[in-house]
Amino acid sequence: METPDNAKDAAAAADSAAEAAEAAETRTGIAAQDWPTAAAEPTYRAAVVDLLGALAYGELAAFERLAEDAKLAPTLSDKAELAKMASAEFHHFEQLRGRLAEIGADPAEAMEPFVAALDGFHRQTAPSDWLEGLVKAYVGDSIASDFYREVAARLDSDTRSLVLAVLDDTGHASFAVEKVRAAIEADPRVGGRLALWARRLMGEALSQSQRVVADRDALSTMLVGGVADGFDLAEVGRMFSRITEAHTKRMAALGLAA
Amino acid sequence: METPDNAKDAAAAADSAAEAAEAAETRTGIAAQDWPTAAAEPTYRAAVVDLLGALAYGELAAFERLAEDAKLAPTLSDKAELAKMASAEFHHFEQLRGRLAEIGADPAEAMEPFVAALDGFHRQTAPSDWLEGLVKAYVGDSIASDFYREVAARLDSDTRSLVLAVLDDTGHASFAVEKVRAAIEADPRVGGRLALWARRLMGEALSQSQRVVADRDALSTMLVGGVADGFDLAEVGRMFSRITEAHTKRMAALGLAA
Repeated sequence: METPDNAKDAAAAADSAAEAAEAAETRTGIAAQDWPTAAAEPTYRAAVVDLLGALAYGELAAFERLAEDAKLAPTLSDKAELAKMASAEFHHFEQLRGRLAEIGADPAEAMEPFVAALDGFHRQTAPSDWLEGLVKAYVGDSIASDFYREVAARLDSDTRSLVLAVLDDTGHASFAVEKVRAAIEADPRVGGRLALWARRLMGEALSQSQRVVADRDALSTMLVGGVADGFDLAEVGRMFSRITEAHTKRMAALGLAA
Repeated sequence: METPDNAKDAAAAADSAAEAAEAAETRTGIAAQDWPTAAAEPTYRAAVVDLLGALAYGELAAFERLAEDAKLAPTLSDKAELAKMASAEFHHFEQLRGRLAEIGADPAEAMEPFVAALDGFHRQTAPSDWLEGLVKAYVGDSIASDFYREVAARLDSDTRSLVLAVLDDTGHASFAVEKVRAAIEADPRVGGRLALWARRLMGEALSQSQRVVADRDALSTMLVGGVADGFDLAEVGRMFSRITEAHTKRMAALGLAA
């Protein structure tokens, strides 16, 4: 997924890269292990298969929706830009599917448990015009980035490298940001409508995620701090609230009250 | 675009590569020139901008339709296969757009004259199920390949390299061929329906192409043998009939009466 590439975010990314480098020296538990070691624990292995399956289907579904939303583009070059984002998602999908096959999991089986939630999300949030499509691409991208970052820290070193590689493909979302800002400047009333839309996107994303968390014990347990610590619903809540908070800040930066 | 990669076609491709190598030594006129030399002739330049614009929008439209048709896939891996074809089309689009910019043409402007015909084609031929989508992907791919080959011989060396590079990306269509053959074997009545469908695709492709040929003089003139020779409708007809004939043979190989 992509992140906006304006200066502030670039600085923040540099900070978190420095933090990550520091964290690498002090990693413990699964985060200090490579995949062959970590995967000896069947619960962890199952959680990673779940995670890669969810991410892979997320990318494939994002590909489909961005390609669909490209139809709403007002110009050919806008259409090409959305098609480019779609194609980037497809390549992420390929990497994740490749990794699933590499660790001996059936990619289609691994994705299956997440099809209903992701299709549900996209069905509930079909944009009705080009600007809604752009806001969705940006919000979706950003939430996915945040989620990838949250989860990367809890993974074995090999899986972490893959997740960070898929994340490390920046610059597309800035296209959406520019276009949305320009539209709001040209007609401030657009901001009100898009702010409502962004809230609906976030609400739907949270509700589908909670459905997944409730269904997939191994995955949820890993997300909240590793297989050893057991399932902690409060920690899942805190992760969701960190992601929501970041979303709110981004919306404000975009000129939308979240 | 992709071509099927079964043995017969591979042998045919090797033959035509040998022919092409031989032809290269005896090339005359524009085909013996590079772009800077050939582009000094404004009519030729206009024709190439038209051609690249038509190919570029063709790829972008193919991307959109394949991505859309991926929704009809019965399984996740089928869906991924169609998404892969779509993504390959997008990368062809990027190459063609890049070339337009390189020669100082506005890509959106160059594509614009072909939007109506290509959108019209896709609107008239929206597949109603997965097999129709596969036949369309295969037929569309093959016709596009044939057309690229026809036209490559008439181009300056630089433009020819690009067109052949975009063509040289084989192997996807064999996926469609396998699936369609298996479906016809399982239920021979499917063959009758798909044969009708393939005829409709070809008819619609020809009718939209003729519309383009009638509208775009410089392009049509180049397609039929270079700017010096003037517009020859009979030669356009012969080109269409070579493409139709190749289509008929492919449909027969697929188990469909064309």
